[in-house]
Amino acid sequence: MRSVNASIITIGDELLIGQTIDTNSAFIAQELNKIGVWVKRRVAVGDVPDDIWQALDEESKDSDVIIITGGLGPTADDITKPLLCKYFDGKLVVNEDVLNHVKYLFEQVYRRPGLMLERNLKQAEVPDVCTVLHNARGTAPGMLFHKKGKAFISLPGVPHEMKGLITDQVVPRLLKEFDMPVILHRTAFTSGLGESMIAEHIKEFETALPAYIKLAYLPGYGMVKLRLTATGDNKELLEKELNDRFEQLKVLVQDVLVTDTDEGLEVVVGKILKDKGKTMGTAESCTGGYIAHLITSVAGSSAYYNGSVVSYANKVKEDILDVEHNTLLSAGAVSEETVIQMVKGAIEKLHVDYAVATSGIMGPDGGSPEKPVGTVWIAAGNKVKITAKQFHFRFDRERNIRQTAHTALDVLRKFILTNS
Amino acid sequence: MRSVNASIITIGDELLIGQTIDTNSAFIAQELNKIGVWVKRRVAVGDVPDDIWQALDEESKDSDVIIITGGLGPTADDITKPLLCKYFDGKLVVNEDVLNHVKYLFEQVYRRPGLMLERNLKQAEVPDVCTVLHNARGTAPGMLFHKKGKAFISLPGVPHEMKGLITDQVVPRLLKEFDMPVILHRTAFTSGLGESMIAEHIKEFETALPAYIKLAYLPGYGMVKLRLTATGDNKELLEKELNDRFEQLKVLVQDVLVTDTDEGLEVVVGKILKDKGKTMGTAESCTGGYIAHLITSVAGSSAYYNGSVVSYANKVKEDILDVEHNTLLSAGAVSEETVIQMVKGAIEKLHVDYAVATSGIMGPDGGSPEKPVGTVWIAAGNKVKITAKQFHFRFDRERNIRQTAHTALDVLRKFILTNS
Repeated sequence: MRSVNASIITIGDELLIGQTIDTNSAFIAQELNKIGVWVKRRVAVGDVPDDIWQALDEESKDSDVIIITGGLGPTADDITKPLLCKYFDGKLVVNEDVLNHVKYLFEQVYRRPGLMLERNLKQAEVPDVCTVLHNARGTAPGMLFHKKGKAFISLPGVPHEMKGLITDQVVPRLLKEFDMPVILHRTAFTSGLGESMIAEHIKEFETALPAYIKLAYLPGYGMVKLRLTATGDNKELLEKELNDRFEQLKVLVQDVLVTDTDEGLEVVVGKILKDKGKTMGTAESCTGGYIAHLITSVAGSSAYYNGSVVSYANKVKEDILDVEHNTLLSAGAVSEETVIQMVKGAIEKLHVDYAVATSGIMGPDGGSPEKPVGTVWIAAGNKVKITAKQFHFRFDRERNIRQTAHTALDVLRKFILTNS
Repeated sequence: MRSVNASIITIGDELLIGQTIDTNSAFIAQELNKIGVWVKRRVAVGDVPDDIWQALDEESKDSDVIIITGGLGPTADDITKPLLCKYFDGKLVVNEDVLNHVKYLFEQVYRRPGLMLERNLKQAEVPDVCTVLHNARGTAPGMLFHKKGKAFISLPGVPHEMKGLITDQVVPRLLKEFDMPVILHRTAFTSGLGESMIAEHIKEFETALPAYIKLAYLPGYGMVKLRLTATGDNKELLEKELNDRFEQLKVLVQDVLVTDTDEGLEVVVGKILKDKGKTMGTAESCTGGYIAHLITSVAGSSAYYNGSVVSYANKVKEDILDVEHNTLLSAGAVSEETVIQMVKGAIEKLHVDYAVATSGIMGPDGGSPEKPVGTVWIAAGNKVKITAKQFHFRFDRERNIRQTAHTALDVLRKFILTNS
């Protein structure tokens, strides 16, 4: 079986001047990958007709499926849709289904029919050579074209509309149209050892892998993901071989293994707490609510997460978390004593079984010779025991915050597993 | 003057299976854009030598500068560096400066010389046909190559290392090597009107723009950015013309204008508070700390931000924020009464002048016929007045959280401006 290749083309000047980070491509790549489509290339071009045309030509040389996002909003119609018409040799016609859907959205869902403009109605105009893909979440329809045996799919760039179209329309159609190879992944998530050290440790394992199984190292905040990818025809055999290798890998890295699923620490910690029927809270100074945000991004987290005291000001550490005034004066806010008292305060005030606390200097200002930027204290504990540890991170403010938050979650995870 | 085009090539399978979101390209594009380099295309390819080779060939047809990131980590050397050697017809040699720098990092900075491995030392091997770009933040050096009059720059994919190299090495060298056109941007940030309505409202303004000034609409969370971009040779004339048009635009959208700088709401609110010498705090239920995270992402925010009570559990709303038990029973957590009491509690407990509170149902679960998913109450106030408003968002959990947080910041901004 030959493999099915795809290219993703994202359109928009905002991508090329760096005003927008492209999150659409990652979602599309994930979903295509799951059904066995290998994304060979991702390309971003500006709102420049020649560049879009060229990208369509180039990508269709190597790929069977070309997915185009962006350039379909109510103010952008002037470029992409006429260009697609020309490229696929069609003309714009009003599609009654899309027109009714646009009217329905404005009248029944947005309940603001008065805001429906000529340019919204124009979104119902589609090239007569395409198959319309129904966009349940918005006014701009998806469009499917065929040319020289290749499938071209144009989607709006608004993420939640694009996501709905990929799931409801694109994936089912591709599964019908193409005979896919099997692509399987297994990911192990490790914490506490650098990329080089892990690579050294599993060198023989890596060398012994068959050609159809690849190993990748994905370093992140205080952790390294190890991903095995197998490609082939026979799903059953492939799955067996991949699982065998993955079990070997897990044994090799067992001392630093966090989880054998591709999930964030906030999910892992949540599952442990749910299993144990316990609750947690956070007391955040330097992470400024980012740990709380990570935890509450997980649907259902209210089952085990009570909340956070983001005590950015010392007065809040004293008044809400009961950190002693003298401790803040003598040891300072960034100290072992302070984070321990923060954990104590959080357990009591948030009525939780476990708490984790952070205090540190994230930069760029606020450092001193004794406590340079990147100095962080993290404590985790329960009602009977609290442990604290100092860390030194060396990044910019944004990365120091993320690194501290992920490290704190890992400190808490280890505490819960060894103290329950 | 001809324009200078660039292409950005990012290397790594993780980009093509959607495991990693590419934030590097946005940073590089921003920095290149500032000095007048137009990024014509961004391409992501996997760890596949043929695909990397092809991308180098293709991109150098259209671009003067080709920037490559990724594929240089200690476990990835096997592919990118040998390929670059072959592509530029060189051979790998040990660079003494890089070798000394790697040793210095392990011995003096990381203070773990025992962890220095053969594969770390190998990072000092570079093609003998490149100019080494010093990477002050890590072990993998940047490399500059020339071929057929085009400049190729290879950078490590670790974001903070890549950023240092772009700022310290790449930008100064490009400014010396190329004669750049002037590219200028002005961005107005509006809130409260949709993209279509704004476009309709400024139709005549847009039509009257000269060919060298482009208008772009960038919709975001509850807001639309309007960006004017001017390209030309004479900086002074271009700046004058752009400023004139921008002033016209600002007058046209004055009712919905948030700021005329390209900054987030968290920065705008911070500036207003600093100007007034006032402080703020947050009481977050459904946003789960995300507002606190946005605010504390801004360096120096401790000058005006005291903290947040992330009251995910009702017990925390009662105990720390003094929300009445009866209110939670009768009106519910997602109600006007609750968010008003949350603001009151936050002002008192966090010792601040202003506070904003959120409570809502972010989904996917927790909705009811009376309060479907997306129902949100937001209140903002000071010691003498509190206003509350209900919103209905219709997105997925992640986007509902972001939309609520940005809307809350805008509600607070308007409150401060009209009540000070």
